[in-house]
Amino acid sequence: MTIAVRHDPSRISFASDNYAGAHPEVLAALATANGGHQSAYGADAYTAALPALFAPLFGEGIEVYPVWNGTGANVVGLMSLTDRWSGVICSDVAHINTDECAAPERVGGLKLMPVPTEHGKLTPELVAREARGFEDEHRASPTVLSLTQSTELGAVYTPDEVKALADYAHGLGMSVQMDGARIANAAAALDVPVRAFTRDVGVDVLSFGGTKNGMVFGEAIVVLNPERVRGILYLRKLATQLSSKTRFVSAQLEAMLADDLWLRSAAHANAMAQRLAAGVAGIDGVEITAPVDANAVFVRLPRAVVDAVQPRFPFYLWDESDAARPVARWMCSFDLTEDDVDAFVEAVADAAR
Amino acid sequence: MTIAVRHDPSRISFASDNYAGAHPEVLAALATANGGHQSAYGADAYTAALPALFAPLFGEGIEVYPVWNGTGANVVGLMSLTDRWSGVICSDVAHINTDECAAPERVGGLKLMPVPTEHGKLTPELVAREARGFEDEHRASPTVLSLTQSTELGAVYTPDEVKALADYAHGLGMSVQMDGARIANAAAALDVPVRAFTRDVGVDVLSFGGTKNGMVFGEAIVVLNPERVRGILYLRKLATQLSSKTRFVSAQLEAMLADDLWLRSAAHANAMAQRLAAGVAGIDGVEITAPVDANAVFVRLPRAVVDAVQPRFPFYLWDESDAARPVARWMCSFDLTEDDVDAFVEAVADAAR
Amino acid sequence: MTIAVRHDPSRISFASDNYAGAHPEVLAALATANGGHQSAYGADAYTAALPALFAPLFGEGIEVYPVWNGTGANVVGLMSLTDRWSGVICSDVAHINTDECAAPERVGGLKLMPVPTEHGKLTPELVAREARGFEDEHRASPTVLSLTQSTELGAVYTPDEVKALADYAHGLGMSVQMDGARIANAAAALDVPVRAFTRDVGVDVLSFGGTKNGMVFGEAIVVLNPERVRGILYLRKLATQLSSKTRFVSAQLEAMLADDLWLRSAAHANAMAQRLAAGVAGIDGVEITAPVDANAVFVRLPRAVVDAVQPRFPFYLWDESDAARPVARWMCSFDLTEDDVDAFVEAVADAAR
Amino acid sequence: MTIAVRHDPSRISFASDNYAGAHPEVLAALATANGGHQSAYGADAYTAALPALFAPLFGEGIEVYPVWNGTGANVVGLMSLTDRWSGVICSDVAHINTDECAAPERVGGLKLMPVPTEHGKLTPELVAREARGFEDEHRASPTVLSLTQSTELGAVYTPDEVKALADYAHGLGMSVQMDGARIANAAAALDVPVRAFTRDVGVDVLSFGGTKNGMVFGEAIVVLNPERVRGILYLRKLATQLSSKTRFVSAQLEAMLADDLWLRSAAHANAMAQRLAAGVAGIDGVEITAPVDANAVFVRLPRAVVDAVQPRFPFYLWDESDAARPVARWMCSFDLTEDDVDAFVEAVADAAR
Repeated sequence: MTIAVRHDPSRISFASDNYAGAHPEVLAALATANGGHQSAYGADAYTAALPALFAPLFGEGIEVYPVWNGTGANVVGLMSLTDRWSGVICSDVAHINTDECAAPERVGGLKLMPVPTEHGKLTPELVAREARGFEDEHRASPTVLSLTQSTELGAVYTPDEVKALADYAHGLGMSVQMDGARIANAAAALDVPVRAFTRDVGVDVLSFGGTKNGMVFGEAIVVLNPERVRGILYLRKLATQLSSKTRFVSAQLEAMLADDLWLRSAAHANAMAQRLAAGVAGIDGVEITAPVDANAVFVRLPRAVVDAVQPRFPFYLWDESDAARPVARWMCSFDLTEDDVDAFVEAVADAAR
Repeated sequence: MTIAVRHDPSRISFASDNYAGAHPEVLAALATANGGHQSAYGADAYTAALPALFAPLFGEGIEVYPVWNGTGANVVGLMSLTDRWSGVICSDVAHINTDECAAPERVGGLKLMPVPTEHGKLTPELVAREARGFEDEHRASPTVLSLTQSTELGAVYTPDEVKALADYAHGLGMSVQMDGARIANAAAALDVPVRAFTRDVGVDVLSFGGTKNGMVFGEAIVVLNPERVRGILYLRKLATQLSSKTRFVSAQLEAMLADDLWLRSAAHANAMAQRLAAGVAGIDGVEITAPVDANAVFVRLPRAVVDAVQPRFPFYLWDESDAARPVARWMCSFDLTEDDVDAFVEAVADAAR
Repeated sequence: MTIAVRHDPSRISFASDNYAGAHPEVLAALATANGGHQSAYGADAYTAALPALFAPLFGEGIEVYPVWNGTGANVVGLMSLTDRWSGVICSDVAHINTDECAAPERVGGLKLMPVPTEHGKLTPELVAREARGFEDEHRASPTVLSLTQSTELGAVYTPDEVKALADYAHGLGMSVQMDGARIANAAAALDVPVRAFTRDVGVDVLSFGGTKNGMVFGEAIVVLNPERVRGILYLRKLATQLSSKTRFVSAQLEAMLADDLWLRSAAHANAMAQRLAAGVAGIDGVEITAPVDANAVFVRLPRAVVDAVQPRFPFYLWDESDAARPVARWMCSFDLTEDDVDAFVEAVADAAR
Repeated sequence: MTIAVRHDPSRISFASDNYAGAHPEVLAALATANGGHQSAYGADAYTAALPALFAPLFGEGIEVYPVWNGTGANVVGLMSLTDRWSGVICSDVAHINTDECAAPERVGGLKLMPVPTEHGKLTPELVAREARGFEDEHRASPTVLSLTQSTELGAVYTPDEVKALADYAHGLGMSVQMDGARIANAAAALDVPVRAFTRDVGVDVLSFGGTKNGMVFGEAIVVLNPERVRGILYLRKLATQLSSKTRFVSAQLEAMLADDLWLRSAAHANAMAQRLAAGVAGIDGVEITAPVDANAVFVRLPRAVVDAVQPRFPFYLWDESDAARPVARWMCSFDLTEDDVDAFVEAVADAAR
């Protein structure tokens, strides 16, 4: 007996990488890890293997904590770096600031200190606006700089850019956390080892994304600098982020790392974004508004085109302040094919004609 | 390419139902729900089907919210029933009081008011100890009565017992939440429709357990009385309990409900507990200390027996206050076979000889 | 036996209205309320009288809750208007955003949504930047608009400006809270009844300031629209803001209202600010940078002048981004005399020469 | 112009030491500290003097932080000793557990672990019930032992009793906090230096009570072991417990310490409790139910006596489980006279006849 198929497996979208399902190798890993009894709550063999599995990416001496989702990875990671009186400097469009229903504030008791950015990218100069008042009890103490890689607007920090930010933050005694929900897309885009823009340049704690890149669920908090964190086992538990059958998160993570599936999937998604951007580049009235560094394409386009295309290919509008010409976000997930992209481009082109 | 098998699928335990893996039908459901794009964050077809799928169990007019885990189900469910100044009356051995690292307090801002119980079962008389001071701003206002069914000590409330508690609580203006991490075991033990000891007798919000009963992960908050809850969508999100690819929780829940897998699995686990209890009943020095209503067996036994058996069949000690004769918890999961139980009984008998 | 005098009662400053002591009539009120026994925690005769005493200011049907301080008044007031998933839109320089060590986030579990402003004054257009996503569980739900009157930069909203903001907020289903730590200064500046820019134009909950205007300690949460608040007695208690001997807060509030001491003191402080602004207007290198609507004067001035004057007349620097010519805040408290101001102006003039 | 007298200064009660007003020397201290400008938020001369003023009581090397009230002193003190995952072991009748509307949980994010006690007094054996699971992420980590001296039931720990508890707690790595809302009464009762049952025997952080002993308002957090606390300045601020005109708290504390006013007031209150206890000892049907160590007398007495006496001399019922013979709490405040007590005894005797 199995359940009914309730959806159309042929239907795709450009709405979110969360609309995609799971990679078959990830599903296979669940079956591999199944059967028999394994200690619960992270004391299983698959979880024990994680530091060694991640070592080729980040080196020795790291810690890896599987969690349920990106919000959990961010909240627990930030809590592990902070005190009860801490503040977190981030971009105004950071997921932690806009899309987590204030979980960092409400679960973590943190104060976010958002700074306006272009394409979601911070600079030391921008961070400096909030990086003050460290000894002032009246002000939340800026304790962590949180970066998103790739950003919510599809931009990617270069290793040098991360280094400049991390050096600046560390120089002030702050720690650096990276929301890497799409770190795979950044790694693929930069075409450098992932540690080149994380551990080697000063990132202390990383939310290593899995769900958006083809896992059923699950992310990993990768502690790159264990000296800066405290209490992470407790924090994961109290934040409701400890999975009882943790082997099933860890096995998925292993599947992602095996044969660089994480990188291959992300590189493909990025390529689809490039193909999409190139495809619509010449279409009249369609204007790309942000760098297409990773797997997102932001475009301003006529409302009529939106209305014509959206029913067949769902996507989100990002900014409707110009109602006649809103900005859309087209997100390319790992499972899109070239044909999918071409069909979408054609639909846009048709509508724009 | 698939991942390595890192564990021994033939190894079983009596440690926790969380040590077990997932039921094959549950894994199959993940594959069924995979492929194509589905709206994220609960707007998919599998999640939309849940109220109708749960209606045979609980009737019409309910709401079903998939979440990650039992702690999340409890915390979000309790928050949905309470105000910022609320207290929750529960048993002293309630999971929310002892095993959630104070997530109800820390995420929910709740005050727990634990009451000493026998075998984890509350009565109106016991609840009355804390059910006072409703209009007193100095005291956390007792707003919810939380029951665990079956209890952490393996006992099961009868429908009449739940009704008496719920009537008492409602009479005071309180709501009733049930931690049903093992509700399937209770339903199988009572052999009555699940609504007979939940919705029909006054339970307002239920944590419907899945993980311990054979899911990869996931539970459902089942709102049996929607008039008593507020803001549950927001609360699930801010408590980090909203899954992006919710279809994969919902499809598992569907697999559990299909052909009553949830009941069959629990009935089997209960039967294994009965077999185990019967098997050790005659063994010298082994004393059953709590009612074997569901899938747990609590026994007092000589330390030497513990030491001899635990390496081959892991289990937890529950109470070591008598070091020479501690109390062990033997938990029977859905995947144990009669042979597993018999081998365990034999090992205990051998050690006790 | 009395205590030693440890300070110089002749020394004054332009640092903060909190540097001043208490008005003699306020001290006298403490003595009047002393002696005998009165019910604690707000059940005393002085507290019972407050609604009637405030009625000439705000009309009938209001509620008045004494609290310890401005942070407490803001946090409790905001909590009474919000749910656990709420957000609060405020100015970027709002005291709740910059000077309360994130108490609204940490005690109230709120998300602040700051908007850049000129002189701390919001407009409907500015509020609109954050007033969106009301039904979106991913985003903190904007529930309250918080205004500061007079603003942290010394500006005062006109009744029409408050009305436009309140109408806009109410139209979106939001409530309006006013941080009135210096509401007396605003009332004196506007020279209209205080209800004309609060209750009559849609403010729902007001923090009525006392400390900065000559009380030993204490503020009042004045609920102008009781239909919008919930649980305020509990919230005041759980936020640690309930005074046991509340009569001593209430008696001070009564002293402030008696013979309009609150208005007279504030009008005097405002007049001192006007005198100060006029006095330095012609001084070379001294530039007033914000409207002098209330009792604050913001000036850009040479560092050398700062260094020369600050030791004798303490004041704070507000913005040192231009190190050579920082912006100072000169705050005029209720107890400054014309001679004090003139001496300060002379010191500035001397230093600037 | 002064305010109206709204209460009867001749009316006294046995309801609470919070019903009393302030000692005249305390009011005088407010006047002494008034006038001129002093740095706000604790940077004034009166606050700077506190460590030296408290040194005769506790020795050198302590820290003193004035706060508003007892709940604030407890919450901030406990936070300073704990992490986000901590638990606090306390008596079931501890004020922090029963009378602070769960502020420790809601503001501090703490888990309280109450233990049933006789007369509110803990012992190492009782503490041991909850002092376990230190390395278990599923359980709130017991981090602080909180004692109340004198207890809510009027009992006083001897120095040896405190030492045994502190030694036990320290041996487990825990810290010791003391709720000393009535520490003066304990000191007077024990007739030993206050450090003999606090600092010398291992108390790490003390809430030094002032309000119940004759202050207008205010308590002090006295850090006896600075090595165990972190971030207390920030914590006091974020918990809304930082007074802007702190000089007015500190001057009151100085008045209490001057000429041992704190001890004399408490000794008098204790003596009144002894006189009261002796006075009612022979009255038929009146039974003293707890040790009269400090300034409280707990008595079981006929309902008719309660009804006859309460209107003239207000007091609270502590336990009405026996409705016909409830237990009353008679609290003796510092300002009661022998005549007051005698009149009360006579009223009880009359009613009991």
